[in-house]
Amino acid sequence: MLVATARPGVVSFALGLPAADRFPTRGLERAIDATLAGDPRALQYGPASKELRTFVAALMRRRGVTCTAEQVFLTAGAQQGMSLLARLLVGRGDPILLEDHGYTGFHQAVAPLEPRLVTIPWSSEEGIDVGAVERAMRSRPRPALLYAMSDGHNPSGASMPLESRRRLAALAREHEVPIVEDDAYGMLSYDEEDLPAIRAFEPDWVLHLGSFSKTLAPALRTGWIVAPEELVGPLASLKEASDIDTATLGQRAIAAFVASGEFDAHLDALRAEYARRRDAMLGAMAATFPAGTRWSIPRAGFFVWAEMPSGLDATELLGLSLEREQVAFLPGPAFTAGDARPAVSSMRLSFSALPADAIVEGMARLRRSIEALAGRRGREPGRG
Amino acid sequence: MLVATARPGVVSFALGLPAADRFPTRGLERAIDATLAGDPRALQYGPASKELRTFVAALMRRRGVTCTAEQVFLTAGAQQGMSLLARLLVGRGDPILLEDHGYTGFHQAVAPLEPRLVTIPWSSEEGIDVGAVERAMRSRPRPALLYAMSDGHNPSGASMPLESRRRLAALAREHEVPIVEDDAYGMLSYDEEDLPAIRAFEPDWVLHLGSFSKTLAPALRTGWIVAPEELVGPLASLKEASDIDTATLGQRAIAAFVASGEFDAHLDALRAEYARRRDAMLGAMAATFPAGTRWSIPRAGFFVWAEMPSGLDATELLGLSLEREQVAFLPGPAFTAGDARPAVSSMRLSFSALPADAIVEGMARLRRSIEALAGRRGREPGRG
Repeated sequence: MLVATARPGVVSFALGLPAADRFPTRGLERAIDATLAGDPRALQYGPASKELRTFVAALMRRRGVTCTAEQVFLTAGAQQGMSLLARLLVGRGDPILLEDHGYTGFHQAVAPLEPRLVTIPWSSEEGIDVGAVERAMRSRPRPALLYAMSDGHNPSGASMPLESRRRLAALAREHEVPIVEDDAYGMLSYDEEDLPAIRAFEPDWVLHLGSFSKTLAPALRTGWIVAPEELVGPLASLKEASDIDTATLGQRAIAAFVASGEFDAHLDALRAEYARRRDAMLGAMAATFPAGTRWSIPRAGFFVWAEMPSGLDATELLGLSLEREQVAFLPGPAFTAGDARPAVSSMRLSFSALPADAIVEGMARLRRSIEALAGRRGREPGRG
Repeated sequence: MLVATARPGVVSFALGLPAADRFPTRGLERAIDATLAGDPRALQYGPASKELRTFVAALMRRRGVTCTAEQVFLTAGAQQGMSLLARLLVGRGDPILLEDHGYTGFHQAVAPLEPRLVTIPWSSEEGIDVGAVERAMRSRPRPALLYAMSDGHNPSGASMPLESRRRLAALAREHEVPIVEDDAYGMLSYDEEDLPAIRAFEPDWVLHLGSFSKTLAPALRTGWIVAPEELVGPLASLKEASDIDTATLGQRAIAAFVASGEFDAHLDALRAEYARRRDAMLGAMAATFPAGTRWSIPRAGFFVWAEMPSGLDATELLGLSLEREQVAFLPGPAFTAGDARPAVSSMRLSFSALPADAIVEGMARLRRSIEALAGRRGREPGRG
């Protein structure tokens, strides 16, 4: 099905790809050229760039987080960060806490450890159910970690209320359960007020994952973990065994791009463009979906989550949408963790990869698909 | 100690770094610029480049290996290849076969799986003891894998005789024990006749690891596994969970560099330069070491292994060399696997990272260090 969603001619809301037409290609090219001209060791094995770690520490202040360059551990993207943390923190068969629908890359990262998945409900308005987290943290054996996204949640689009962040931070400390805070989208917020990351409230028990994949480009394969300094050594051993080091060239090129002063203007332009795309999608929602559909209004990230009236099956809709209208999305059950009840009538729509006019066109196709599904159901009296 | 070996002023034979002054920096810069100018998706997430996998399959013919692009799985360097294969093939506590002194990155890659390490002896002339491998493969429970390097072994410098390769391939098939063949140095051979890789004799039971880190540059973080096609799917799942994908930009830049026709000439020049460096080191060996020292004459790779007369302790020598003469190497015990008996009087000398004149200077320093050690021993009648 994922292959079908990438066919030419398909308008795809399926994948959470950053906008290739908005990569700072020329700026990165200049940064790479300057880096290579300066020192051939930019192509050598090497320790993590102090300059880049210092910049990341400065960048973290936008997320309300105070940390030092020594607490910043560079990784090959946030995915490697969560994979390394999973291997560091989770023993075979340990219970871990995660939302009942979430980022499947995390599910893959923990799968080899065969953890017991304790799933937590969420809503697309309020995010994770903090009360359920509290009950789960009290259970024994003690959970090895909680995986959470404070902003631009994948797939719900939710950003947690401030109070949830504070409470989760306090719960982590009280119950000594580390939170792996996946902040892949935290820099891409579209409203005036940015809320601080969970890590802002708890430096010892929150391990924060960040990435340049969404703010600059994925092919730089550069992300980071902000962690207590005592975890940096064990992370370095695991990382070295996994792939030796994070590409020196990518690190230095990002540092050169930042030094050129282009980062802030680039990020501002990117936020404005993603806000336009989000608004194009939100503007079309009411006309696209049947009455009774609920959807989130994401403050950050790439995703809108739509919950159709029960009885409408999102997976069935996807098949029909691809076949008749060549429009794609991911149905809710694609994100189900463990044996949680799949969100069969829900879907994730990504607005990140397409310009606003293509989004409007895709939403019109989706509307026709939904009408066709309703029509088909009308002709099948045994159903619904 | 590793930090001390990298101090300014130290002549270091310690690390197996490729020669930064021989990176094809300008050619790679042109390749990166052309790639970025052609398509912004060079910075996007993406599937492994068919063009590059096709080139790798062609390159493998130099190693005597016939394979298809579909059997080439791209990785973030050979280190990631061995880490993924270890996780795919080794169950917790399984026995695995490896040489009694070997590449420590492999030891790190398997450590989290807590395997039972069954160590196999080798000599710097003949490489791995194939008879010992045969006995170990017959033992039960069946070993999960054998880790081996056919050319330019780290740390011994040995290249296996042709007959050993054939026998290992046959043993793998007969006993159904996969061989993980680490061929990081196989393209860097200095004699007229290249011997085929073990994989040339056995496509089903030999998993072959290659890399552009030594032939182009480590910071491209691009290597490969040649594996039976049925392993490619499971490897892709593990890889995706680890770091999503291998950097698109690096893959496409290498493909563009190859397409420009520069690869062959670059590799020829590199082999000639490393041969000069090897010869500079070999030319100084007899004058450097005391009578009774034995050393390998590497046909490939970056390393010479020197076994001093017993009674001379290489770790003690390193301390004295760093302190008095600022010259560094790695002592044999740094490479010991499991509870094998450490090679206390041996050392690994890397000739890759330094030009020939610096090698000659470093070997003169090492000679003075050895004389000082002998003198110290002469003044300590209780020893030796």
